[in-house]
Amino acid sequence: MDWLEVPIRVRYGETDQMGHAYYANYLYWFEVARGDWCRSRGFTYKSLEEQGYFLPVVEAWVRYRGEVRYDDEIVVRIRLAEVRRASLKFEYRIYNSTTAQETTEGYTWHVLMGKQRKAVTIPQEIRRLLGIPNA
Amino acid sequence: MDWLEVPIRVRYGETDQMGHAYYANYLYWFEVARGDWCRSRGFTYKSLEEQGYFLPVVEAWVRYRGEVRYDDEIVVRIRLAEVRRASLKFEYRIYNSTTAQETTEGYTWHVLMGKQRKAVTIPQEIRRLLGIPNA
Amino acid sequence: MDWLEVPIRVRYGETDQMGHAYYANYLYWFEVARGDWCRSRGFTYKSLEEQGYFLPVVEAWVRYRGEVRYDDEIVVRIRLAEVRRASLKFEYRIYNSTTAQETTEGYTWHVLMGKQRKAVTIPQEIRRLLGIPNA
Amino acid sequence: MDWLEVPIRVRYGETDQMGHAYYANYLYWFEVARGDWCRSRGFTYKSLEEQGYFLPVVEAWVRYRGEVRYDDEIVVRIRLAEVRRASLKFEYRIYNSTTAQETTEGYTWHVLMGKQRKAVTIPQEIRRLLGIPNA
Repeated sequence: MDWLEVPIRVRYGETDQMGHAYYANYLYWFEVARGDWCRSRGFTYKSLEEQGYFLPVVEAWVRYRGEVRYDDEIVVRIRLAEVRRASLKFEYRIYNSTTAQETTEGYTWHVLMGKQRKAVTIPQEIRRLLGIPNA
Repeated sequence: MDWLEVPIRVRYGETDQMGHAYYANYLYWFEVARGDWCRSRGFTYKSLEEQGYFLPVVEAWVRYRGEVRYDDEIVVRIRLAEVRRASLKFEYRIYNSTTAQETTEGYTWHVLMGKQRKAVTIPQEIRRLLGIPNA
Repeated sequence: MDWLEVPIRVRYGETDQMGHAYYANYLYWFEVARGDWCRSRGFTYKSLEEQGYFLPVVEAWVRYRGEVRYDDEIVVRIRLAEVRRASLKFEYRIYNSTTAQETTEGYTWHVLMGKQRKAVTIPQEIRRLLGIPNA
Repeated sequence: MDWLEVPIRVRYGETDQMGHAYYANYLYWFEVARGDWCRSRGFTYKSLEEQGYFLPVVEAWVRYRGEVRYDDEIVVRIRLAEVRRASLKFEYRIYNSTTAQETTEGYTWHVLMGKQRKAVTIPQEIRRLLGIPNA
C-alpha cells in the first residue's frame, strides 16, 4: 500500500529545554497524519466517529533518530500496513525537510470499536473506506 | 474567601527551548488547582459533570513573572473570587518554591452549563458545594 | 496595522472530554500565528533567537466564545497591535470556518530580551523587521 | 531491579473527546516517573543535565489496555530494566487505582549523551548514581 506525505511545521510549544521536539509530540503528529490519510481516502475520521465507530490506539512504537527542532518542516509519511479482523496498523516515517534527514519511524495499532466501545469485526463499509480488499 | 495551596512539580515536557515552562502549561496547572479546590470543598469536578453540569472556561488571563523551570516545585494558590448568577471567577497566584519567588498570577471565568450545554442559573445545590451563601 | 490570516486544523489530541478544544491549546495556536506573522514580514522567529533576541510572553488574555471541535478548520487572525520601548502586543481573532462563526479573541504581550535575558529597548534593526516606524 | 511506584492524577486537559486520556500523555507520565526514579536514587535528572549529561529517548513502546479517565489516580511503576555501554532501558506498568485495573505497559530506551550531544560510554560516576554494578 502507498505512502501518503503529510507536511507539519514544528511548533515552539512542542520543543523542550534540550532544544528538540519533546518525544510525546511525535504521537500527535502521527495522529495528524492519520486524519489526513482518511481524508486522502475520501472520508474523515470525524465522520467515522459520528457513525459510531472509534479507532483507539492499542499499541504505539517510535524510534527517534536525527534531530527535529523548532520551525523545522517535517514530512510524516504514513501508510496502512496491515489489517486484521478487528484491528489495523499504520506505519510512519518522518523526514525532516529542513535538515534533509530521515529521522523518526514508528507504528500504531488500532482496534475498531463500535458504539458499545467493544472491538468489532471491521464491516465491509469500513473496509471499503480504508481501501481494503474484501475478506 | 480563602486561598488553597496546590503543589505541582514542573515536567520536562512542559519546558520549551527557552528553558522555561511553556506559557500554555500554566492553564493546565490552573485546571489542576481547580480540581483540588473542588476536592477541598468535599466534591469532585468529575462528579459535577456526572450530574450533568459543566464549568467551561469563558475567559482566561495570565501575567507571567519570574522564572519557572524544569523540576521546580511550584505552589498554585487558588480561590473562588467572584460569583454571579450563572458564572464564577477563580483567581490564581503561583509561587515558585524552588526559587522562593512569587511568579505568575491569573484568573479564569467559568459559566455553569447544564445538559443542554446552555448557561444556567447556579442552583442552590451547586452554590452549597461551592460554599456560596444563598442568593 | 493589518491582520494576517493563519489557517489551522484542530487535532484530536487538542480536544478534551467535553468534546471541545481544551482551553490551553488556543495559546499554542496564537504562537503558530505569531510564527507565520514573522514569516509574512520576511523573517522567522527562529532567526531572531539565533541572533540572541527572545520575545517571551509576559501577559496573555483569551475570551472563549462559540465552539471549536476536532477537525474544525479555524483561521487565526493576528496583528501587531501596539509597540512600546521594550515590549509589544499581538491581538488575535479566531474564526471557525467549519461552523462559520467568530469564536475566540485574545492578546499577548511580549518583552524583547537580549542574550542576558534582560528586557532591552527594541533596536532599529528589529523595529524594521516588525514594520514599526522609527521611534 | 526493583519497581518504584509513582502516583499521578489524570488532568482534564489530558483527556480527549473519546473520554479517555489521549495516548501521547502516557509518555509524559513515563517521564514524570523517570524523574521520581532518579530522585529515589538520590539525585535529580536536572542535576545530570547541569553536569552536561543528557538522556534523550531513542525508542518508546506503549501497549494501551484498560481505561484511564479524567481524575483517575494511576500508579506508574518504573524500573531500570537493562543497561548497555551507552544506553539504558526503563520499563513501565500503569495501574489504575480508581478502577483497580492493570492498564498500560511500555518501555523507553535512552542514550547517554555528553556536552557534545554525542553518545558516550556511561562513566562510573553515572553508573553509581543509577545503581549499576561496575562494568
